[in-house]
Amino acid sequence: MSACYNIQNRLLGDGHFWIVAGPCSVESAEQMERIAQSVARAGGQVLRGGAFKPRTSPHDFQGLGVSGLALLKEAAEKYGLLTVSEVMGSEEIPVVSDFVDILQVGSRNMQNFSLLKQLGKSRKPVLLKRGFSATYHEWLMAAEYILEGGNPEVILCERGIRTFEPSLRNTLDLAAVPYLRTLTHLPIIVDPSHATGLRTLVPALSQAVVAVKADGLMIEIHPDPDSSLSDAAQTLSLEAFEALIPVLKKLGSVLGVKV
Amino acid sequence: MSACYNIQNRLLGDGHFWIVAGPCSVESAEQMERIAQSVARAGGQVLRGGAFKPRTSPHDFQGLGVSGLALLKEAAEKYGLLTVSEVMGSEEIPVVSDFVDILQVGSRNMQNFSLLKQLGKSRKPVLLKRGFSATYHEWLMAAEYILEGGNPEVILCERGIRTFEPSLRNTLDLAAVPYLRTLTHLPIIVDPSHATGLRTLVPALSQAVVAVKADGLMIEIHPDPDSSLSDAAQTLSLEAFEALIPVLKKLGSVLGVKV
Amino acid sequence: MSACYNIQNRLLGDGHFWIVAGPCSVESAEQMERIAQSVARAGGQVLRGGAFKPRTSPHDFQGLGVSGLALLKEAAEKYGLLTVSEVMGSEEIPVVSDFVDILQVGSRNMQNFSLLKQLGKSRKPVLLKRGFSATYHEWLMAAEYILEGGNPEVILCERGIRTFEPSLRNTLDLAAVPYLRTLTHLPIIVDPSHATGLRTLVPALSQAVVAVKADGLMIEIHPDPDSSLSDAAQTLSLEAFEALIPVLKKLGSVLGVKV
Amino acid sequence: MSACYNIQNRLLGDGHFWIVAGPCSVESAEQMERIAQSVARAGGQVLRGGAFKPRTSPHDFQGLGVSGLALLKEAAEKYGLLTVSEVMGSEEIPVVSDFVDILQVGSRNMQNFSLLKQLGKSRKPVLLKRGFSATYHEWLMAAEYILEGGNPEVILCERGIRTFEPSLRNTLDLAAVPYLRTLTHLPIIVDPSHATGLRTLVPALSQAVVAVKADGLMIEIHPDPDSSLSDAAQTLSLEAFEALIPVLKKLGSVLGVKV
Repeated sequence: MSACYNIQNRLLGDGHFWIVAGPCSVESAEQMERIAQSVARAGGQVLRGGAFKPRTSPHDFQGLGVSGLALLKEAAEKYGLLTVSEVMGSEEIPVVSDFVDILQVGSRNMQNFSLLKQLGKSRKPVLLKRGFSATYHEWLMAAEYILEGGNPEVILCERGIRTFEPSLRNTLDLAAVPYLRTLTHLPIIVDPSHATGLRTLVPALSQAVVAVKADGLMIEIHPDPDSSLSDAAQTLSLEAFEALIPVLKKLGSVLGVKV
Repeated sequence: MSACYNIQNRLLGDGHFWIVAGPCSVESAEQMERIAQSVARAGGQVLRGGAFKPRTSPHDFQGLGVSGLALLKEAAEKYGLLTVSEVMGSEEIPVVSDFVDILQVGSRNMQNFSLLKQLGKSRKPVLLKRGFSATYHEWLMAAEYILEGGNPEVILCERGIRTFEPSLRNTLDLAAVPYLRTLTHLPIIVDPSHATGLRTLVPALSQAVVAVKADGLMIEIHPDPDSSLSDAAQTLSLEAFEALIPVLKKLGSVLGVKV
Repeated sequence: MSACYNIQNRLLGDGHFWIVAGPCSVESAEQMERIAQSVARAGGQVLRGGAFKPRTSPHDFQGLGVSGLALLKEAAEKYGLLTVSEVMGSEEIPVVSDFVDILQVGSRNMQNFSLLKQLGKSRKPVLLKRGFSATYHEWLMAAEYILEGGNPEVILCERGIRTFEPSLRNTLDLAAVPYLRTLTHLPIIVDPSHATGLRTLVPALSQAVVAVKADGLMIEIHPDPDSSLSDAAQTLSLEAFEALIPVLKKLGSVLGVKV
Repeated sequence: MSACYNIQNRLLGDGHFWIVAGPCSVESAEQMERIAQSVARAGGQVLRGGAFKPRTSPHDFQGLGVSGLALLKEAAEKYGLLTVSEVMGSEEIPVVSDFVDILQVGSRNMQNFSLLKQLGKSRKPVLLKRGFSATYHEWLMAAEYILEGGNPEVILCERGIRTFEPSLRNTLDLAAVPYLRTLTHLPIIVDPSHATGLRTLVPALSQAVVAVKADGLMIEIHPDPDSSLSDAAQTLSLEAFEALIPVLKKLGSVLGVKV
């Protein structure tokens, strides 16, 4: 079992399972309002939403920036949710910290050691996504950069690795959860949305996330998935999301996991 | 949902979940007796055991051959179980068919087209393991070689793919199950033993196999795992195996899967 | 340096570099005549051509079989060339041996241990292609199956490995050549056609094959590449092939390699 | 052919081949003096040396920092060489720019978009190493971040990709050179030291780098390789380095490449 974190009076780890949900990109107040309401109704703990977006091409939508963070915070506060959003460089740490409870490091930045060192000096918990081709050892050493800097609250997030399979965006590596349990006390959550890139696969894999007794689920949802400004194909509708959670709760109760 | 096969009065697929268990290699009558008893006690359907073994090195133990098949069959019949064992070349099909109910094609032979064509002429169901670096498309086309030959009963078996991660034997690809559901009616079972190579990970991943609603679980067990002639590190003890099955049954009941 | 083989009075290895060229599939007498003439004119040693073809789908062209082998042999004899063609199963060894000087094991069959064991009893040299996801160790152990059976003449052939890159068919691993030199005396040739799948890349990579001092080059050529029945995109025209060879000879002379 | 850059009166690209050599880490004035002398004697253009080092573990040697940069610059100026060194975060751009002619982005930072955007505003050429699991498309898009920011001089550097092979550090992808020629005008150099991790393989692969007509070679050298503070196994001695260059020049002259 992992350590148990108390983040703003929400327990994570040691049997306390988190639902972290939200859109790929923050788009509008109305979008965030509807999503936050859905997450709260489903019993989720954290609202996610990208404001500074790491995109392969400089010509793709780069996110709303600070105004997106404000929309994220506003919606979360209204429904009593925590917030998480990505910070892409050291220079963004102060501004993102003003709006979110948890700072996210994206997959492409897992070995951005300058950023990791600065996050070691932060007082905010850090959600560290696995590099899409990182070994377990590299991932733990990336966490070590943050821990060694004096920040004890790192949350690992498995989000799929790059393989030769062309049909899916990545290959979700669920063995990471029980294997890392033998090496670290850090809580581990899983993101099946980025791992597959296909929303039809997300419910089954979310069930598997509970089944391997991970500490949480990170999932992309949207009131109108097909109109998402990014990652449309992998985003679940609010209805599908809300239908999934009761199933996860039942599976969790079999295994002693409090979803 | 997959098709439902009736193999010797045992239903597989369409909600009927199989437990296929046994040692990596058939070693002795006493070993097989104890394992078969355990599989039957746990409510399993099929006894597995290798007799013709595909080994990376010609200097490694190559299996007991025909005498191993006889031990497999004897133990299975005593406890009312079906049998499955690997056939490595066309020339072995007749002799293996004399002893087993289901013919297995191993991962390294997934694209042994000569073998697949001959299996298309067999009247025995074929368990087709995924090549350790095969795409979904290649795997389905390998099945197509058997189906096109006139043999309609192919069972797919996900067993992990080769990635860059050095800590584990392979990376289990559970997304294969819900994804292939959208492409094929063939039943899909999952082997977490070969996928990880570490017995401590097998229970959690077996739970995940039920959670993604696969059609069965293939698992290596042994009365004394550390003394196994092959694959010792990934083999579960009979006690651990029998403790796992009731958990799988409970998870299955949440999801409408009859384990 | 590798061992030096004398195959039908043609030296291979220890500085003697082979050009092995021909079509993916044998198609007609006229096609083979034109290709054999081109290979001989360029100073090549071996005519290649597929007759029993391993194809991902059973619905793809499967090769001309025995009549293809006859066309291969006829064209090669007219121009004083050796022949190589693939054998896909043990049952084909006798018939293929009647027509060719060197038996080829394809990438998908590298760990078809039944086939390897039978080839160990053959008196024909064996060209063993690397499995598309085989480690160096597995490749050498596959060769060991043949050597241990009593057949001393194995030729290794690097043909690219499967990676995450979608643009090319495979990733050519030229480091295999100098690295395997430290582990084995077996000659190593390289196939840049299958490794890339794109004919425009073949000349540059063929130059690199000489530069790493491999023992030979295996290359797909055709009088009218775009009309090839298989692998059209990666096949060089006879003109491009014949223009390439003098460049390889000059590079070889710098390095003490007799192209 | 690529574009031709004129960097401090040194031509790169369009047939002008660069030798970029130096130690993994700058260690001392004496070390740098000896290496710079060797690079100049061999006819090289650029002295490399790490001062801010990206290391998997925070407990590994992190480089000498600014004092290392000063040693690099001093040695290079004495022998009329250009300099290149890695910049790991936006905050380091000014200080590294004070000492080097070319700013290097390391493999792990290839998709550090904050850093790339800042480098787009720099007036120094940027050497962009390929991410160890980056596709060609992602690599070109990373370059696009710099180009779009207004910095026209990007040099691509292939340095091996991560595969399943455990024997070598990475798999060198030489097909990248001719393939990218069809997509971009940017010069492409190749680093066989990081690509293999084994110094015995570096000469053969360096020859192959010329053979595919890359625009340059980046190579790790040290007066006493086994005592290197980092990357000892892959570092060539000065003697081996100086013996290699004349061979590269001869190969280049066959192909119209001015080494």
